[in-house]
Amino acid sequence: MTWLDSSVMGRRGVAQCREGQHHHLTEAMQGEYHYVYGPYADPVMTIAPGDVVAVETLDAFGGAVKTEDDLPSKVLNMPFVNPQNGPIAVEGARKGDVLAVHVRSLLPRGPQPAGTTALIPDFGGLVASGLTHLNAPIAERVKKMDVTPDGIRFSDRITLPYEPFVGTMGVSPEIEAISSLVPDFYGGNMDLPDVAPGAVIYFPVQRDQGFFYIGDCHGRQGDGELCGVAVEIPATVTVQIDLIKDWAIPGVRLETEEFIMAVGSARPMEDAARMAYRDLVRWMIEDHGFEETEAYFLATQAGSMRVGNMVDPKYTLGASMLKQYLR
Amino acid sequence: MTWLDSSVMGRRGVAQCREGQHHHLTEAMQGEYHYVYGPYADPVMTIAPGDVVAVETLDAFGGAVKTEDDLPSKVLNMPFVNPQNGPIAVEGARKGDVLAVHVRSLLPRGPQPAGTTALIPDFGGLVASGLTHLNAPIAERVKKMDVTPDGIRFSDRITLPYEPFVGTMGVSPEIEAISSLVPDFYGGNMDLPDVAPGAVIYFPVQRDQGFFYIGDCHGRQGDGELCGVAVEIPATVTVQIDLIKDWAIPGVRLETEEFIMAVGSARPMEDAARMAYRDLVRWMIEDHGFEETEAYFLATQAGSMRVGNMVDPKYTLGASMLKQYLR
Amino acid sequence: MTWLDSSVMGRRGVAQCREGQHHHLTEAMQGEYHYVYGPYADPVMTIAPGDVVAVETLDAFGGAVKTEDDLPSKVLNMPFVNPQNGPIAVEGARKGDVLAVHVRSLLPRGPQPAGTTALIPDFGGLVASGLTHLNAPIAERVKKMDVTPDGIRFSDRITLPYEPFVGTMGVSPEIEAISSLVPDFYGGNMDLPDVAPGAVIYFPVQRDQGFFYIGDCHGRQGDGELCGVAVEIPATVTVQIDLIKDWAIPGVRLETEEFIMAVGSARPMEDAARMAYRDLVRWMIEDHGFEETEAYFLATQAGSMRVGNMVDPKYTLGASMLKQYLR
Amino acid sequence: MTWLDSSVMGRRGVAQCREGQHHHLTEAMQGEYHYVYGPYADPVMTIAPGDVVAVETLDAFGGAVKTEDDLPSKVLNMPFVNPQNGPIAVEGARKGDVLAVHVRSLLPRGPQPAGTTALIPDFGGLVASGLTHLNAPIAERVKKMDVTPDGIRFSDRITLPYEPFVGTMGVSPEIEAISSLVPDFYGGNMDLPDVAPGAVIYFPVQRDQGFFYIGDCHGRQGDGELCGVAVEIPATVTVQIDLIKDWAIPGVRLETEEFIMAVGSARPMEDAARMAYRDLVRWMIEDHGFEETEAYFLATQAGSMRVGNMVDPKYTLGASMLKQYLR
Repeated sequence: MTWLDSSVMGRRGVAQCREGQHHHLTEAMQGEYHYVYGPYADPVMTIAPGDVVAVETLDAFGGAVKTEDDLPSKVLNMPFVNPQNGPIAVEGARKGDVLAVHVRSLLPRGPQPAGTTALIPDFGGLVASGLTHLNAPIAERVKKMDVTPDGIRFSDRITLPYEPFVGTMGVSPEIEAISSLVPDFYGGNMDLPDVAPGAVIYFPVQRDQGFFYIGDCHGRQGDGELCGVAVEIPATVTVQIDLIKDWAIPGVRLETEEFIMAVGSARPMEDAARMAYRDLVRWMIEDHGFEETEAYFLATQAGSMRVGNMVDPKYTLGASMLKQYLR
Repeated sequence: MTWLDSSVMGRRGVAQCREGQHHHLTEAMQGEYHYVYGPYADPVMTIAPGDVVAVETLDAFGGAVKTEDDLPSKVLNMPFVNPQNGPIAVEGARKGDVLAVHVRSLLPRGPQPAGTTALIPDFGGLVASGLTHLNAPIAERVKKMDVTPDGIRFSDRITLPYEPFVGTMGVSPEIEAISSLVPDFYGGNMDLPDVAPGAVIYFPVQRDQGFFYIGDCHGRQGDGELCGVAVEIPATVTVQIDLIKDWAIPGVRLETEEFIMAVGSARPMEDAARMAYRDLVRWMIEDHGFEETEAYFLATQAGSMRVGNMVDPKYTLGASMLKQYLR
Repeated sequence: MTWLDSSVMGRRGVAQCREGQHHHLTEAMQGEYHYVYGPYADPVMTIAPGDVVAVETLDAFGGAVKTEDDLPSKVLNMPFVNPQNGPIAVEGARKGDVLAVHVRSLLPRGPQPAGTTALIPDFGGLVASGLTHLNAPIAERVKKMDVTPDGIRFSDRITLPYEPFVGTMGVSPEIEAISSLVPDFYGGNMDLPDVAPGAVIYFPVQRDQGFFYIGDCHGRQGDGELCGVAVEIPATVTVQIDLIKDWAIPGVRLETEEFIMAVGSARPMEDAARMAYRDLVRWMIEDHGFEETEAYFLATQAGSMRVGNMVDPKYTLGASMLKQYLR
Repeated sequence: MTWLDSSVMGRRGVAQCREGQHHHLTEAMQGEYHYVYGPYADPVMTIAPGDVVAVETLDAFGGAVKTEDDLPSKVLNMPFVNPQNGPIAVEGARKGDVLAVHVRSLLPRGPQPAGTTALIPDFGGLVASGLTHLNAPIAERVKKMDVTPDGIRFSDRITLPYEPFVGTMGVSPEIEAISSLVPDFYGGNMDLPDVAPGAVIYFPVQRDQGFFYIGDCHGRQGDGELCGVAVEIPATVTVQIDLIKDWAIPGVRLETEEFIMAVGSARPMEDAARMAYRDLVRWMIEDHGFEETEAYFLATQAGSMRVGNMVDPKYTLGASMLKQYLR
């Protein structure tokens, strides 16, 4: 008996935390990785609600940046970046349902230095873009780091804690196929550190079987993913996927033992912040018995805001409330 | 010997943490409160670097909202809101210097319920404004709360921790007089919960004697101050003010025992986020020996972002770095 | 000999203004209309550079709003709105080329009142969205108007000039399939009144054969398409499509007898404005011999800015320069 | 009998187009110019409604940029830029009234080349700022131009039409003193080309006697004032100032013989666009008998949007409607 039994996944999921079959989605099984979240690909596997899948993900560069001399502008072939595993079909999923994804573990794969970050011309939170500015770009640069569960070797002097999470995860839009670099209501490239082992993430299903995609694992990241590239690692990420029937949610939601979080992805950043808080207030009203004004007041005095990314085509923020105030 | 001795205030301040005279700025002494941050008012007192001042602040409504029936639209007289104490003249302060303000304590004053929050028509993070939208406003509403160091009584069921901070604090612009509702490079209405007891806040002096203003204390607030009104309280806030000569900083900076923070205030929100991280990177380079790219990389992987307010004329965000990574 | 001979299409097009075959893409031939701009549909026809196509477009509602009693929320089935003709395959088109589209004529089709505009809940430039705001939506409303080349009957008192244009037009992204409600570098739902009879519009080809889509014709529209719905009409629009080999442009460009225009689509609006002016400056440098600073100065003193839409998922603005200053 | 008699100024002004006394505000009479819009300065003159004032304005650099070798970073002393004439006190003006300012003529003053534009580091629509970005600044540059009513000599090849307007004009805020670089509801640095000879501009009075300021004349400017510096000229601008009692307007409005315009100044740019259109709709309802939905629909189909500036601390846009649709 864990907190999961009292989570939305535990209470309303088809499998109600009962563990189904175990699957292993290896690189070989995946074969061709995907660069869009969409309905036009064939499922790599079909699973039942409650099943557990261990997924071998590539890093955001598809492993092309092997050394600090492999400059992204040389080794990358746009738009073929941020490769994704999937789609995984979930039996019984229909538009209007929700996929509940419990991240169980996330471990780095492959030879060291497994971690990569980089300064990519015209890209990043403190960098002007050639599409909007006249300034010369800053110098391109790659940094490789050893990444293990014991820590991330940023430099001889600095070792950062290993706090892994999944950068890109979600379901297929109904008729669109969107770049895996974009986050939105269906998930995608949210780069939100709360999408981490222990959390349950909820995605609004848009089409039959949901079509779940996952990739872009990070050893860690600061708020905002400032330069646009976290500690990118190839990884084995294990998720349990359940199905919640007939739950209408406008976007991604998330739950941990301590808090609930609503996620917004938009530009400008204040619209992402509003979306996140607006849906948090909606959730407090619909599932926790708050009157609207009281929910708005409590979010004002006790809400927390996480800046996930401030660099992607849409910025992603998460608004959360401690469960202790919801009981 | 505390961490303050190793703070910028302790190392570079004129008083170097030596405590000067104690002053008490009572309501009576203040007399007329101010509604702009500017150079056109006469100082209420002149102090020396290192002096300690206990200030009796009014709440953001000037105490006009006494009960839940005192609707802001009825009892407030714009633009006379968010009354400020000061200006306090600091001997020797010149443009190009920095005022270092150590918040020592913050206690609620006056009869209970001392705490006030409200829904004000056309104002707040989830509310359309009549200046930009056609939608009807949401209902106006006032909520009063008991506020003591033991907690904030939000409702019969919910008591929130007392985590007080100063909503509005800063120095006078050189020639402008700006509404106390606005935050900017000189400080002002930042509504940033890190401006709290224990922290040292650094303000770039714009004119002789600095002209320090303070007011708008909050019993607590969630990230973003969502509805636009925190737990507003009249308070006694005690600060020690020191002077750092010849320190060029582009905006407000902040320091605690654990981290340093750079603050940005702007619209859209991403510009405030960029300002904050940009100045954090500058600070890491200038005072902590980082090469620019390494500072940018470290901020990407280990920076934290606080959303102070998402409701004021400019939004305020703070970007911080743990000191353990700066040594 | 017309100005077209001296246009980029005339000078660099494969057909160099020579008129090819004429095609008629009727509703029947189109059969199933499309709701995304993408590579996953089969071409309805294949044409050669220089060919002329008369296209029967549906209005943005697919004709579902027949009377002022047909409220969008009742008769529309999201995301199946803004139906598009195509894709039309263009022989020889490859990534790195440009499709040049000369709009020759645009005439309303079908019974009167052919024109429809509407207030759609949570949508429009002066309306709060339920995804970001708490305010109640404004009342839903439909307005039907007679639309002929002689004018648009807005009311008994007001007849507006018939100034038709194509709201949505462009090429397929390389691997994405994007909603026809979205504008971006490949074109799409720009809602830019300059995309009108007489103009030539240039689209950067992203995949073999270009895959040209077109739809969403408007009888007219004010700057910004304020409520989000122009004078929507079913139409017959006739375009000549040429191919320019090896012309690298970052986004949509446009040319008339009097001016050249670069188009930007982004949020916030200032980013769309910057994109548009940035590419206008680039064009002035690359094709008209300006030194960068002089181009920037001339755009500052003589550039014009059109606000196309301020309501779509990305806002579209066009920056233009009179040809008389380019010679 | 001109269109002015039927303007709001003509119909509701205290002077009703009757011409009062003529005044000449010379450089010598002005003496010290001002760099803020505020109530803390003494009036240079007091006039009666209907009076006409010829004002000798300095250029935005206070004449400090005399040659193309006078780089702004060398010759300017921030914040002492954009010098303003005034304040001019208007008898009988009270908060809640409106100043109506009819621009009668605008002529360049002083030796040639009278016109100046410049690239100023970290400033301009296509340039990254050191406060938010890491990129190196672009090269600083000054361009001087001959400016006469016959034209503006941009280069040997290009002469631009002389289309002069007033960059900065407005009334004092009630208690704030705001930099003359900032535009807002009270006017200020709008850089809106419609504030030109022939137009009447309406400013909401905030304090007794209005306190009218004016300066920053431009020989011409493109939409958006892209690089941030128009064709800056010292000028003699002649205005007739009337007073409209008890007219509540939320911001600046403008009127010509052909159209009415509402002005919005804000960031992000879409908020300025919304403010402008929102107030245009309000004006159509209050003074022209439109029902709200009809006004919103007509603005959608026939409104025009001018991008005044996309470079100042707030962006300024103007939304206009042809008078022919208002009758």
